[in-house]
Formats: sequence, C-alpha cells, structure tokens
Amino acid sequence: MRILLVGAGGVGTAITRIAARRDFFAQMVVSDYDLGRAEAAVAAITASDRDGSRFSAARVDASDQAAVTALLREHDCDVLLNATDPRFVLPLFGAALEAGASYLDMAMSLSYPHPERPHELCGVKLGDDQFARAEEYQKAGLLALVGMGVEPGLSDVFARHAADELFDEIEEVGIRDGANLTVEGYDFAPSFSIWTTIEECLNPPVVYEKDRGWFTTAPFSEPEVFDFPEGIGPVECVNVEHEEVLLVPRWVDAERVTFKYGLGDDFIAKLKTLHELGLDRTAPLTVKTDLGPAQVSPRDVVAAALPDPATLGDKMHGKTCAGTWVKGTKDGKPREVYLYHVVDNQWSMREYGSQAVVWQTAINPVIALELVATGAWTGAGVLGPEAFPARPFLDLLNAYDSPWGLREQ
Amino acid sequence: MRILLVGAGGVGTAITRIAARRDFFAQMVVSDYDLGRAEAAVAAITASDRDGSRFSAARVDASDQAAVTALLREHDCDVLLNATDPRFVLPLFGAALEAGASYLDMAMSLSYPHPERPHELCGVKLGDDQFARAEEYQKAGLLALVGMGVEPGLSDVFARHAADELFDEIEEVGIRDGANLTVEGYDFAPSFSIWTTIEECLNPPVVYEKDRGWFTTAPFSEPEVFDFPEGIGPVECVNVEHEEVLLVPRWVDAERVTFKYGLGDDFIAKLKTLHELGLDRTAPLTVKTDLGPAQVSPRDVVAAALPDPATLGDKMHGKTCAGTWVKGTKDGKPREVYLYHVVDNQWSMREYGSQAVVWQTAINPVIALELVATGAWTGAGVLGPEAFPARPFLDLLNAYDSPWGLREQ
Repeated sequence: MRILLVGAGGVGTAITRIAARRDFFAQMVVSDYDLGRAEAAVAAITASDRDGSRFSAARVDASDQAAVTALLREHDCDVLLNATDPRFVLPLFGAALEAGASYLDMAMSLSYPHPERPHELCGVKLGDDQFARAEEYQKAGLLALVGMGVEPGLSDVFARHAADELFDEIEEVGIRDGANLTVEGYDFAPSFSIWTTIEECLNPPVVYEKDRGWFTTAPFSEPEVFDFPEGIGPVECVNVEHEEVLLVPRWVDAERVTFKYGLGDDFIAKLKTLHELGLDRTAPLTVKTDLGPAQVSPRDVVAAALPDPATLGDKMHGKTCAGTWVKGTKDGKPREVYLYHVVDNQWSMREYGSQAVVWQTAINPVIALELVATGAWTGAGVLGPEAFPARPFLDLLNAYDSPWGLREQ
Repeated sequence: MRILLVGAGGVGTAITRIAARRDFFAQMVVSDYDLGRAEAAVAAITASDRDGSRFSAARVDASDQAAVTALLREHDCDVLLNATDPRFVLPLFGAALEAGASYLDMAMSLSYPHPERPHELCGVKLGDDQFARAEEYQKAGLLALVGMGVEPGLSDVFARHAADELFDEIEEVGIRDGANLTVEGYDFAPSFSIWTTIEECLNPPVVYEKDRGWFTTAPFSEPEVFDFPEGIGPVECVNVEHEEVLLVPRWVDAERVTFKYGLGDDFIAKLKTLHELGLDRTAPLTVKTDLGPAQVSPRDVVAAALPDPATLGDKMHGKTCAGTWVKGTKDGKPREVYLYHVVDNQWSMREYGSQAVVWQTAINPVIALELVATGAWTGAGVLGPEAFPARPFLDLLNAYDSPWGLREQ
C-alpha cells in the first residue's frame, strides 16, 4: 500500500507517528500547504521508522484537485488519506477518484442549513455531496471510506459492534463525547481544531428517528448530563451536528440516532459570543492588511488567534473519552451499554509526543488502512465505518495498545 | 477659519452636518482614506449649507504625516480637526504642527501598560506623547486642543464649570456615562466604534488621587450602580481607561478623579470573551487572504464583522447620557451634583440624520472651534477643555438647541 497523506497538522503528524510502528504499507507521502510542516513531521519519525525510508514530504494545496491528482500519480499512491479540515473534502475526494486511488477521511463534506426552517429541516446534509458520487466510486472499483476518525469513526464501529453482538433490537444509538482536559496557562485553548468545532457546534444539530428520518434542532439543544468512565465523571452534553447521525442509520437498524458533545457552559458561552459577533462566519470580509485591503474569513482569524491545539500537549492534563451509548433489547431483556475509548494525555504525550485528542483521532484511520491492506475490510463505493465488520477493528485497537471498554449501564 | 476635517466616519459626517448650520468658518475640507465616504458626507450637506460651497472632499491616509501636511498647505487650512480613531493621533498631531495649523482631537494618543505591574502602575499614559511636545506647539504659538469630544470634552468642561461656580473644594470628579439604547434586529451592535471601545475597556483603567498621583486597576474594577437622568435610570458602571482622568487634574483641583462607563453585564462578558480569545489584539497575525498570506490585526476583523455604528441610527431607540458627577463642599456645606447632557436618538436622527452617540461626540468640537474662531477661547500649547472658561461653552451648547442639565444629588 502506498499512501498519500494530505495535511500535516496535529492529526496528520500523529498519523505518521502511529503508522511508523506498523508494517502494512510501503510508502507514505506526507503533504501539506506548508512544506515545512510536512518536512517536520517526516523528520520526527524517520529515526523511529522501521526501515527509515518509507516517509517523504511534499507541498500541495488541498483545494487544488488537479495538483492533488498529479501528486497521487507522481508517487503512484493507491490511497489518499485526508487529514485536512472539512473544507477540503470535495477536491480531495475528487482527486482520489480521478487518480484511481481509494480515499479515506475523518470528516465528511459540509452541510448547508435549510434556507427557511434551519432548526427543523435538513438542508444539504453532511456527506450528501460525497454519497451523490457513490456510484462513480463503485464503478471504478474504488473504496471511499468516509468518517473514519474517532468520532465519526470508532464511534460508528462501536454502533456496528452493538448491532452485531450485543443487541437484538436497538432503540437509540447516542454518541457521547466528554473530557476533563485542562490546559495550563491559557484562559481558553480548545483541544481540537476551532474551525471544525465552530462548524459542528453552530450548525443546526441533526437527529435521526426511524419514522421521521433526519431532522434538525436549534444549536445546543436537549442538554443532558452524561457520566463518563475512567474518572472523567459527569459532563453536560448537548446536541451537535455530527457525521454519525448521518452514517449509522444507513447500515445499522436503530429507532433513533443522536450525537451529544460535552462542551461545558463556558465553551458554549464563548461559541455563542463568536456567533453573536459574526466571527464564526466563513464568508470573507474586506479588511486592511499589509498587502492592502483583502478578503479575510473571520473564522480563520479566530483560529489564527488561538494556540495551535497540536502544540498544547505538554501543557494539557486529563483524559478524553469518545464512545457510543446504546439502548435496546437482547434476548427479550432491556439492555443499555456504553462502548468507549479513553486516552490519557500523559500517556499519549509520553508514548507518541501527541496530545490526547488528536492522537485519538489519528489512530483510527491507521487501523482502518491496515484492515484494508490485509484484506480484512474490502468494498467499493462510499462506505461508512459501520459498513464493515467491527470485531477485527476492535481487536486491532487492543493490539495497538489502546484498549476500548464496555460498561453495562 | 479654514478647517481640515480628517475622518468622514460617523463622527466626522455628523460634524459636517452640525457645522453646516454655523457661520464661524470659511472652508471645511472633508478628508478620508475612502474618498467615497468624504464625498458622501459633502454631498449630503451641500443642500443645507448656508452658501453651498464651503465644503469639499479629499482623499488622505491619516497615518501619512507628510501627506496630511501637504493637504493642510494645499488648502491653506489653519486648523486640523481629527475625527479618526486614536491610532492616527500622532501623525495628525505632528502634521498640524509642521504645517503651522492648530489641532483639535476627541481622543488622545494611546497608552501602553506598565510592563511588569499593569494593574497597579501606569506605563505610557493617554496623551503622554502629545504633552511631551507641548513646548513645540507653545513656541509656534499654536493651539492643540486635545480630548474635545463629549467624553473627554464636554465632561471636562463640566468639571471646570463645577470648580469655577459650584464648589469651593472638590473631593471627587467622577465622569459617568450610561445609556438605554437598543438596536432592532441585532444580537450585538455597539453604538460607538468597537475599535475604540475595546481599547478603552480592556486597557487597565486609570485613577487619579492627589496624594498618590495616577495609578491603574484591573479592567472592569469598582462596579457601582449610577442612576442616570431623563428616564435612563440605574446602570451598572465600571472603571474604564479614559482621557478625563489624565486631563482634569492638570487644571482642576480635585482629591480624586475617576471615569466609569455603564457597559452592562452582557457587553462586559463579550469584551472579556474577545480578550480570552485574543481577538482584542492589534498586533497582526498571519492569515490566508485572497491576496495570499497577509498580516491582519484581529481587532480590525472584529470591527469589520460588526455593523457600522454610524449606519444604525434608524434602528436605534433610546437616549445616551454623558456627564460629570462632582462631590465636594460649597460655602462650608457638603454638595454633590451631576452635570449632564442627554441626546435622544429619535431627536438626533430627525434633526441631523445622525445617531445619538456619534452626534453627541460631534457637536462639541464644532462648538470649541466656534469659540476659538470668535476669540472666546485662546491659548497656545497642548491644552485640555478644562483649561478654558466653561461658561461660554455651556451657553453655546444651549444655543445649538442641545441643552445640558444639572441635578443636585
């Protein structure tokens, strides 16, 4: 397997560190808009890589489909691994198809709210623009494995595992994400891409119900306190737009699918303020710059003003938990479980030099690629993680020394 | 008198509308970085101006001292009226001196916090960089009348009036500013320049005490509820850095001088969030733009994302109050008064097409220039409004149909 990794930010860099310990691929070309970032990622793992020459760095603009296609061809890559933010999903998804490569991402193409009733009806949904091209991937015999990070990704694998082995009937699949991470010396330092966090938190959250289909609510709706395992404890969670709600119902039979994120009051208040000030917007404004009046996206400025979450690992403390709560029946009796994966920042920093949240995202696409490389996962078209058998994935997660857990509720 | 007005934003435009009704000047050149703004201001008052030809428009970059000097000379102006934001004070202050013109502004040169103990000691104070050149203005026989808007400006005139006519001894001069303005259809729409509001609210507030001199506190310190007149009612006020605290003690004998601004909880929370996110900063960040990666000041982006306060007049409701609360003794008895000026937005929109806050700022420099033109106010050097007799100013304010008030407490 020859992989083109696009994006050498926090998640991309962690991917190189995790992959360097595995044998399933022959080559990984690490590319970024900023060549220095790609080179730094490669330099950091060359010493630890098993044969020292599998990684190389390249510069590429992820928004330029033709350039990405050319890079795939130049290095004869058979898979494109997208580790950029969701703005770049469509050109990268298109480039892989054009170059005859498989494609894997950790976030799907962007949604657009319903023009008249944004808090009731879906407009363009997450991933719609990718599923629209599923037949092209299928006809080309290529796999587009979408939403294959931790959430979406591992959370979807958990849903499939619940359906396969733990339940006869599922009433609700509820993804629940929470953490007790703190960052020394910062009033406010999000532990994940603020661009993506704003996107998912301020868009109308999507909910699935079998008899109603997909629908939306107002941001931060249906708050509930969820008790997270391994010492994290209770965190207030609210509905957030997330890919699992769109993916799970396509392959898993469930009455209801939700996603709730443990944001906490302070974070919610800050996001609301950004929205009220219009600073969450991506549409550019004309602003004075050293190059003259230029078009600037306010959300890019918010991201630039905050510390890069990937660099905060040594100031972070605590654990992050991703997981899937499932309620239903097994053998005629009610059952409720929480399938989860916890990463302690101290452990991920010591073992990989990566902070917990980006590391937890990064491990899953590496495992998925290993399953594709070994033939344990096969398929063509646009498929979510729950389209594949869950057991080999969960076993490999344990083999990567990052065990998952199951709590009966 | 021939005036170069620099800045045709909200305040500058209101100045042209107020001045158009007065006879004391022969020419007003209205200049702006954006020529269209200057032309629009001129076009709007040409019909109402008494002789139709006193106003003309010009383009100028206020940060370019040489260009401003040349413009003053080209139009043979004897006074520069600065209606830009405080970043441009120094080049404009320098240009007037160079061209042999008098100078008037509504905000003074910027402060810089004390590098080690910003919430206790002053660093560079507001206006320090202007007072440092007072002798040059004095030797040239030129007047630099600084801080001559409403606050600072009219508030300083009130302080002088209190010292001249209402008190024998003054314990405290406390400027208190509050409003009950609302803007239809906006979650958040500041009624004055957000650039300036951030500057004054997030800098450490300065306080004067006779035995201690000037010192600073933490932002938003010493909250108090002040009851504003004419139906505005009680508003929570906090210490804010403002020019009056630096100006009043130079000419008025008082034990203590403070400035408190009625910001309200919601506004304070938003300013704190901007600060926590680093979006109040003026130091540029590198951000992607349509012209390539460029240097962008986050505070400029905040300003660009919000509606222009000067355009909100027809959606605003309510009144704004500026004033000076004075506590001391008269004829051996304790006395406490609040000298104030209230503008109703409905009135200022109907009479001048300008919203209340910018109109209230704009009227004061026009009155001051009229007093200079008629010889009622004379002087050379760098002088604050309280360096001049207050009575002629207050009488002229009544004559402009915008009466002030006095409330015994």
